[in-house]
Amino acid sequence: MSRIVQKYGGSSVADAESIKRVARKIARAKQRGDAVTVVISAMGDTTDELMDLAYQVSPQPQTRELDMLLTTGERQSAALLAMALNDLGVKARSYTGSQAGVITTERHGDARIVTITPGRIEKSLAQGNVTIVAGFQGVSQDTKDVTTLGRGASDTTAIALAAVLGAKYCEIYTDVDGVFTADPRIVPTAKRIPEITYEEMMEMAAAGTKVLHLRAVEYARREGIAVHVRSSFSDNPGTWVKGHADIAKGNQMEEAMITGIASDASEAKITVVGVPDEVGRAARTFDVMAAAEINIDMIVQNVSAVSTGRTDISFTLPMSDGQRAVQALNAVKDEIGFEELLYDDQIGKVSVIGIGMRTHPGVTAAFFDALAANDINIDMISTSEIRISVIVEAPKLATAVQAAHTTFGLDTNGEAVVYAGTGR
Amino acid sequence: MSRIVQKYGGSSVADAESIKRVARKIARAKQRGDAVTVVISAMGDTTDELMDLAYQVSPQPQTRELDMLLTTGERQSAALLAMALNDLGVKARSYTGSQAGVITTERHGDARIVTITPGRIEKSLAQGNVTIVAGFQGVSQDTKDVTTLGRGASDTTAIALAAVLGAKYCEIYTDVDGVFTADPRIVPTAKRIPEITYEEMMEMAAAGTKVLHLRAVEYARREGIAVHVRSSFSDNPGTWVKGHADIAKGNQMEEAMITGIASDASEAKITVVGVPDEVGRAARTFDVMAAAEINIDMIVQNVSAVSTGRTDISFTLPMSDGQRAVQALNAVKDEIGFEELLYDDQIGKVSVIGIGMRTHPGVTAAFFDALAANDINIDMISTSEIRISVIVEAPKLATAVQAAHTTFGLDTNGEAVVYAGTGR
Repeated sequence: MSRIVQKYGGSSVADAESIKRVARKIARAKQRGDAVTVVISAMGDTTDELMDLAYQVSPQPQTRELDMLLTTGERQSAALLAMALNDLGVKARSYTGSQAGVITTERHGDARIVTITPGRIEKSLAQGNVTIVAGFQGVSQDTKDVTTLGRGASDTTAIALAAVLGAKYCEIYTDVDGVFTADPRIVPTAKRIPEITYEEMMEMAAAGTKVLHLRAVEYARREGIAVHVRSSFSDNPGTWVKGHADIAKGNQMEEAMITGIASDASEAKITVVGVPDEVGRAARTFDVMAAAEINIDMIVQNVSAVSTGRTDISFTLPMSDGQRAVQALNAVKDEIGFEELLYDDQIGKVSVIGIGMRTHPGVTAAFFDALAANDINIDMISTSEIRISVIVEAPKLATAVQAAHTTFGLDTNGEAVVYAGTGR
Repeated sequence: MSRIVQKYGGSSVADAESIKRVARKIARAKQRGDAVTVVISAMGDTTDELMDLAYQVSPQPQTRELDMLLTTGERQSAALLAMALNDLGVKARSYTGSQAGVITTERHGDARIVTITPGRIEKSLAQGNVTIVAGFQGVSQDTKDVTTLGRGASDTTAIALAAVLGAKYCEIYTDVDGVFTADPRIVPTAKRIPEITYEEMMEMAAAGTKVLHLRAVEYARREGIAVHVRSSFSDNPGTWVKGHADIAKGNQMEEAMITGIASDASEAKITVVGVPDEVGRAARTFDVMAAAEINIDMIVQNVSAVSTGRTDISFTLPMSDGQRAVQALNAVKDEIGFEELLYDDQIGKVSVIGIGMRTHPGVTAAFFDALAANDINIDMISTSEIRISVIVEAPKLATAVQAAHTTFGLDTNGEAVVYAGTGR
């Protein structure tokens, strides 16, 4: 009997019927003889609805109380799933993050898992229960207050549990059939990727592939946990995320130059115009962003114009943080001494990702040629060892992704792409 | 600075606006310099909605999981109230029953408070916080599972906390202006009772007065906690529940024969016809009810007819348990050997309550005369030292209550009755 951890996202447990469907899926795994631990998200839009309620009560809800409020969502779905399983004759018990021993830092709304003390989980598994843990939450090491783990947190909870329980693998059930060579909504000929390395998955996630959250992949890589991403709406094979050595020869990505094309329409660009080209001025700009807890993605600093002694700094950030960023920068306009701010959220990011790049020269050239051939201007560029990302005009995003997908030979030969689910 | 405990029911925190209103009420108490601990119920119909959800998922939800599900309601309102208070500049922190140290028995759905270990509450009060505790819930002493305390439980939580914290008194905020000489919806001339003894309040509660739950009054009496029942929708004086010695002379109830008339339309009557008049047959009937965890109220056993050697047993029980009771009894029909079961839920209970009865003879006669004068037949009778209850036909209930209210001189002299609130 081997241990496995399964995680089901909110869209997989959106209502009573979905919860029963998920229960049947879990019951089948249990019948295969596995010892199953399940991490569950809140039902459908519950978290958003609770957030709305909080803002009806308070213009700026305290983070401690917001965590107390939001964590009830996963507790509800966990309890309901346990009821549904028991009806199927499968013994099940639900646990809050705190009961499950998920110990975190104290930072409400974005806590990190410090350790997991799985005493009660181990006991529950020993009793033969399917053990259901409310995702996204834990308890603060020092204050013993309820905390939430921030975005992608239920995936991270599942992988952390898989590690501490010595699980054979971690299944992440979502509303898509796995990781594709491109977003099938943009590229209908995109192919499911049967196996992908942690490194490539991290680049895909960082570049906008929403299927699995970056932090969760990092955690899986560090702990060496094999992750199986698949749909809770089908029994299709999905995508395995593994260490390079564990990837089946036939699927090893050296054979292909490029693993996939990621796209992200959720970023905006800020250009700080006319920054005096003196030591520390640019740094100060990013201090301000850091203080506002805004994550910067790409950065370009133009060569300073000798005549003016001033330079422009452009960077991208999540569109949702755009207005806060502009306010924060304007607040220090005189201190930094820039001339003006330009804000543009009509941009899209296209990323070409593949370990194959290391050994194949000319990928950049081929990518840029494909964009040029489609009249697409490149606004910003950033690269890693196995990724090239460019910013283009938002209206050109889809064309750019399709062009790259074709150029690197990723289009299916008529193989139908299964894309179940409710969208994320 | 004196400590007080306040409890707000679900109808007092039905939506965001109500929560803010309650927050302002608490802020005023805090400004008077009191150290305030608040026990809060779930918002409006939240508990019913969660219950519906559970039954959508499972025909018979496990009680452990049901408790995990239902307790989220109070956690949500507690967190929201804390947010609202902090917005008013009043430091506040919310705690789950478990965090507040409410240790209970293991019986899910109807656990009893074993003890309260108020370490975190004391710490929070010492920090000057309004300390908000999710009502209706605790944690099981042995299993450490989340439990719920059953009906009237938030009142009990509040009174238990008042006792352990050494509070000056416990305020129960509800949607009515206090305890009245009769249900003002039935008797418009009913008067608010300014002060009432624990014993009378217990009889009123047992006899159907919903304002305060019997178990909570028992607890207050045992701990000697003064309870102030009042409306969260007004600043009206409400009703004090106290020990007899603490009742102001002017309000002492010896001066009046009768304190109030209680009515209850929620009971049904079962008559077991033709029970062999042998030792243990009747007892067996009530064993069956006990096994089904159904509370019996009034019992009448007719004199056995010598000719047949059989007798009839009638008893009243909550209407909501009626069908279960009938099924349970029919299952043992042959064993008990009765002839048939009669079920009647068209009944009402009228109770006359007052410590004055002890010293005033003739109360029973006056009561029955009033009923006779209104053509109301008495079906069953039960009495205690300070209460007389009768069962009448449901359609006659209101008339019976009004008649008793007038007979015992409880009608107001034109004084308007304030009856705010949303109904319970």
